Amino acid sequence: MTTRHDDLIVIDGLIIAKWSRAVFADMRKGGLTAANCTCSVWEGFEATMRNIAQWKRFFRDNADLIMPVHSAADIARAKQAGRTGIVLGFQNVSAFEDQLGYIQLFKELGVGAVQMAYNTQNLVGTGCYESHDRGLSDFGREVVAEMNRVGMLCDLSHVGAATSRDVILASTKPVAYTHIAPAALKAHPRNKSDDEIRFIVEHGGFVGVTMFPPFLARGSAATVDDYLQAIEHVISVAGEDQVGIGTDFT
Amino acid sequence: MTTRHDDLIVIDGLIIAKWSRAVFADMRKGGLTAANCTCSVWEGFEATMRNIAQWKRFFRDNADLIMPVHSAADIARAKQAGRTGIVLGFQNVSAFEDQLGYIQLFKELGVGAVQMAYNTQNLVGTGCYESHDRGLSDFGREVVAEMNRVGMLCDLSHVGAATSRDVILASTKPVAYTHIAPAALKAHPRNKSDDEIRFIVEHGGFVGVTMFPPFLARGSAATVDDYLQAIEHVISVAGEDQVGIGTDFT
Repeated sequence: MTTRHDDLIVIDGLIIAKWSRAVFADMRKGGLTAANCTCSVWEGFEATMRNIAQWKRFFRDNADLIMPVHSAADIARAKQAGRTGIVLGFQNVSAFEDQLGYIQLFKELGVGAVQMAYNTQNLVGTGCYESHDRGLSDFGREVVAEMNRVGMLCDLSHVGAATSRDVILASTKPVAYTHIAPAALKAHPRNKSDDEIRFIVEHGGFVGVTMFPPFLARGSAATVDDYLQAIEHVISVAGEDQVGIGTDFT
Repeated sequence: MTTRHDDLIVIDGLIIAKWSRAVFADMRKGGLTAANCTCSVWEGFEATMRNIAQWKRFFRDNADLIMPVHSAADIARAKQAGRTGIVLGFQNVSAFEDQLGYIQLFKELGVGAVQMAYNTQNLVGTGCYESHDRGLSDFGREVVAEMNRVGMLCDLSHVGAATSRDVILASTKPVAYTHIAPAALKAHPRNKSDDEIRFIVEHGGFVGVTMFPPFLARGSAATVDDYLQAIEHVISVAGEDQVGIGTDFT
């Protein structure tokens, strides 16, 4: 018997975890076809490369559960193989350091999504907790162009409003808020206004809704209903075609 | 009209150069199908990664002349495309630092051949100029096994006799002297005895003969005849099936 679940391609927009076989087994139980899995937040180039080397080991030791994703076709292959496809992702550009040339190296090693800033200012732009966001730096514009060239998604979830807008306009390919909640339901520096949600979607982008309780209407008292309400709100603003989930817990 | 040259697969066992479009154009003029091109000698992990990033740029800017080689099939593709296939190579293991996990990352980025030592002792073994060579270290045995696993050639040209022997015996895949000259014609720490040449070939290995004049019988007075003499000698010892050229100038 084929259930709806068996037919679906289910992609988690962002997961951060203390990775282990138990986590990968849970991904299978949850029916995840693919997920954007964080392998760098504050780390520089070398520490991130060591994290990626560790992921190569995870792929080898858990080949019955997970497989690396280098392209959209690999997601279909993961579905077919009954394994969860892993898109490696960064939540910050710190691993790029000041080297545009590193971007292609990371892409070739399986990094498919990179957030342009994580809460604070960096070489590229500004995160959502900074006092002032003056948008993309000149280097940041080069980074967006290089990410476009190699085929790496720009994630804007933790990014400030001005930098997000600059990236949406500068990018020649669709970008994403992989894991956000709507500001209309809860005022919070990490949440996005209806205008921001509309703006990214109008430019072809994707919005993933996160269930992190502090971003939901009732904060730490939130239940799954609050999460559904957040999803419904984002869909009401953006339409359902470009909305999904991102189950990050940060 | 098809000449013999048009049919040949010509692979240079090792080239080190100040890389530029002029060098790549010369490779085409010389009819090279593929070459093992040095991108790291003394550099550590990060500096080597920057060199590889530079190579990605070379591939992009000179796509009419060269292309990256990740597999034997890519060499056939290069021949078909009328371009020279580039196998990135290291002349030392310094870029591995103390991290076995780095080896797969380099392999995925196109590094196909790595020399186990460059003249002196390192974490893996000992080079041919060291006073004492006590063979592969324990870490070195792990490095050989990992290189075998990912499919990376062990080069022994600048490696000491004891370490070379250990690698030849430890490796489950054929190894190579990519660029050496015969000690029978010129006593020199970099040259290999007839026994050493026979030993590697008996274990399925490959020998490339270099034209660096100090290694040839008449030293700096050497002409192309001395080089041909060296090739003829190595063929007389090893048979012609497993002998080729490596035009390194160090």
